[in-house]
Amino acid sequence: MKNFSFKNPTKLIFGKGSIAQLTKEIPQDKRIMICFGGGSVKNNGVYDQVMNALSGHHIIEFWGIEPNPTYETLIEAVAQARNHSIDFLLAVGGGSVIDGTKFIAAAIPYANDPWEFVLDDSKITKTFPLAAILTLPATGSEMNGGSVISKLATKEKYAFHHPGVFPLFSILDPETCYSLPDYQIAAGIADTFVHILEQYLTTAGQSMVMDRFAEGLLLTLIELAPRLMENHQEYDDMANFMLTATMGLNGFISMGIKQDWATHMIGHEITALTGLTHGYSLAIVLPALMQVMREDKKSKLLQYAERIWNITDTNPETKINTAITKTNNFFRSLGIKTTLSENNIGEDVILEIVHRFQERNTVLGENRNITPDKVLNILNLCK
Amino acid sequence: MKNFSFKNPTKLIFGKGSIAQLTKEIPQDKRIMICFGGGSVKNNGVYDQVMNALSGHHIIEFWGIEPNPTYETLIEAVAQARNHSIDFLLAVGGGSVIDGTKFIAAAIPYANDPWEFVLDDSKITKTFPLAAILTLPATGSEMNGGSVISKLATKEKYAFHHPGVFPLFSILDPETCYSLPDYQIAAGIADTFVHILEQYLTTAGQSMVMDRFAEGLLLTLIELAPRLMENHQEYDDMANFMLTATMGLNGFISMGIKQDWATHMIGHEITALTGLTHGYSLAIVLPALMQVMREDKKSKLLQYAERIWNITDTNPETKINTAITKTNNFFRSLGIKTTLSENNIGEDVILEIVHRFQERNTVLGENRNITPDKVLNILNLCK
Repeated sequence: MKNFSFKNPTKLIFGKGSIAQLTKEIPQDKRIMICFGGGSVKNNGVYDQVMNALSGHHIIEFWGIEPNPTYETLIEAVAQARNHSIDFLLAVGGGSVIDGTKFIAAAIPYANDPWEFVLDDSKITKTFPLAAILTLPATGSEMNGGSVISKLATKEKYAFHHPGVFPLFSILDPETCYSLPDYQIAAGIADTFVHILEQYLTTAGQSMVMDRFAEGLLLTLIELAPRLMENHQEYDDMANFMLTATMGLNGFISMGIKQDWATHMIGHEITALTGLTHGYSLAIVLPALMQVMREDKKSKLLQYAERIWNITDTNPETKINTAITKTNNFFRSLGIKTTLSENNIGEDVILEIVHRFQERNTVLGENRNITPDKVLNILNLCK
Repeated sequence: MKNFSFKNPTKLIFGKGSIAQLTKEIPQDKRIMICFGGGSVKNNGVYDQVMNALSGHHIIEFWGIEPNPTYETLIEAVAQARNHSIDFLLAVGGGSVIDGTKFIAAAIPYANDPWEFVLDDSKITKTFPLAAILTLPATGSEMNGGSVISKLATKEKYAFHHPGVFPLFSILDPETCYSLPDYQIAAGIADTFVHILEQYLTTAGQSMVMDRFAEGLLLTLIELAPRLMENHQEYDDMANFMLTATMGLNGFISMGIKQDWATHMIGHEITALTGLTHGYSLAIVLPALMQVMREDKKSKLLQYAERIWNITDTNPETKINTAITKTNNFFRSLGIKTTLSENNIGEDVILEIVHRFQERNTVLGENRNITPDKVLNILNLCK
């Protein structure tokens, strides 16, 4: 086990009707900017619950943080927050709204162009307090210090991290997710599944506890997925999914271990270039990455095959093949098209991604040996 | 799943050589009282590492916090801390030293007799900052807001909880545990195992995630135990054990679920009356409690039998019997004597415990239906 340090200060407030607790959590004298996405919260009752809980507070609303939140939209929010002397940010929405709000929290006090700290988060020295109300389980942003921001102008998408952008608290009410469309549930399940594997599927024998926690989340997702796709309105199923998505990326399964994240880095490029939904891009890349990196990941792939998919075949190579097939089939069972061609993504995108990695001398993966050549092999398998 | 709120602010600093990080974690201007146990840290190098890391700080030392830390010892520490205007407490030792230090942290600013807040923790309004260096994996105190204190005068032992006594940080270096005697490793494994079951072994179907996390920790302990009992100096095994003990009682496995804790309440009485090591008292009580409460816990006992002990017997009652036997055998494999008589504890202790629960009208367990009569049944099975 590697040495590590772990701290997660976010207070998780979970359950039916818990949005009402906002009243207790935000001091009366705060000047709040509430950040929203496209408006679904006006149809599902969340907006009204938030406004009722915060009646009497000084509030301004910022609408329109999009999926894969953009620098271009967010700098407008930063300007408004500065103009109104905002001192508390509340994100209401999915991971994109929360990620966007984290950017705003770090950008308000930042003197230069905030894109600088997206590229180099060591430049962040101060952040404004933020909290979140999550309405879409997927990214884990509600309980971590990470954020992924896109820049339309250059079709770029990068993550930044800072301890100052952990939400002070996050409120998760599973009932707010009942109205989500199928494809968002599917993308959320895929995103969560891949988050867990980015942390789990590296080298065996690093941490028994982290392995068991990660495996527990994977088994939970696999058991839940068909029920969730059939019915979004079963409270306990949605509660278990929400909790799994949060635990999948809040540091609870990454203590003292190496992490991969190559699937995300490649997936981010696909989304930046084509606009494909984040979770879908991951479901395309992951099985191909497993195939190309199967020697590096052999011992862990075998553990994954046994403990997650109950594959008892005695031949290790067959075992790994079956595990990869089952992973791909799992994503397809969610209704996700797991090839680039099914998503109308062609050779040009593959070549541009490889070109970008070559230009930046990017090497990916837990052993930093996924070179642009290997990325090409991976993407060719995704066709 | 029940509604819940979760927050754990403790920073975990984990790994080889990590005591040196003390320098960065405690501000130079703090007046520190370091709280120690009986002196083993002078033999295993921990004392020297701590003093080196804190050289230049204003320090006073308080020695002699005993296993099952007593009110009588701790009020002396409180007096010294007040006299020296201490404003930071550092516990160096096992769970007892940390629990004792939590008491000191809450007692320094407390105007009346601090035993009051042990009996009613809602009386705590202020606490002093504390941190810990853990040298014995067992209680989880290094990453929670609980503390168990004994009073010699009345042979009482009670727990109190407060958000203000979470350690600011806890340093865990597995190498500091290499010199632990066998019986402390055994007691630590048993304590951890029972902590997990107090949270897990209630009603099935409350939380898939919490079930999987708890099961993961149990499977880890069962796999580790024989190796740890054989050899205390294998780094990764000790690291996995330390992490399991911390995760077993830091709230990570208790979100949104009912909890039992009857084994602890009964075990505390055994220890208060006889001085028996905490972990040993739990190993005696738990299998008997499983037997007496088998109808209430039936569905979860079956899940425990299947997922933890791989018992595939088709008869549910046989399955549960086997699971209870395996649990008892697990404790015995650690060298623990799991009957009262083997520990020279007689009928008088049983009757006094039942008498105490009757006097206080105590009812225990996740359904508050373990009456003093049932406690008598449980203790009779422990003979």
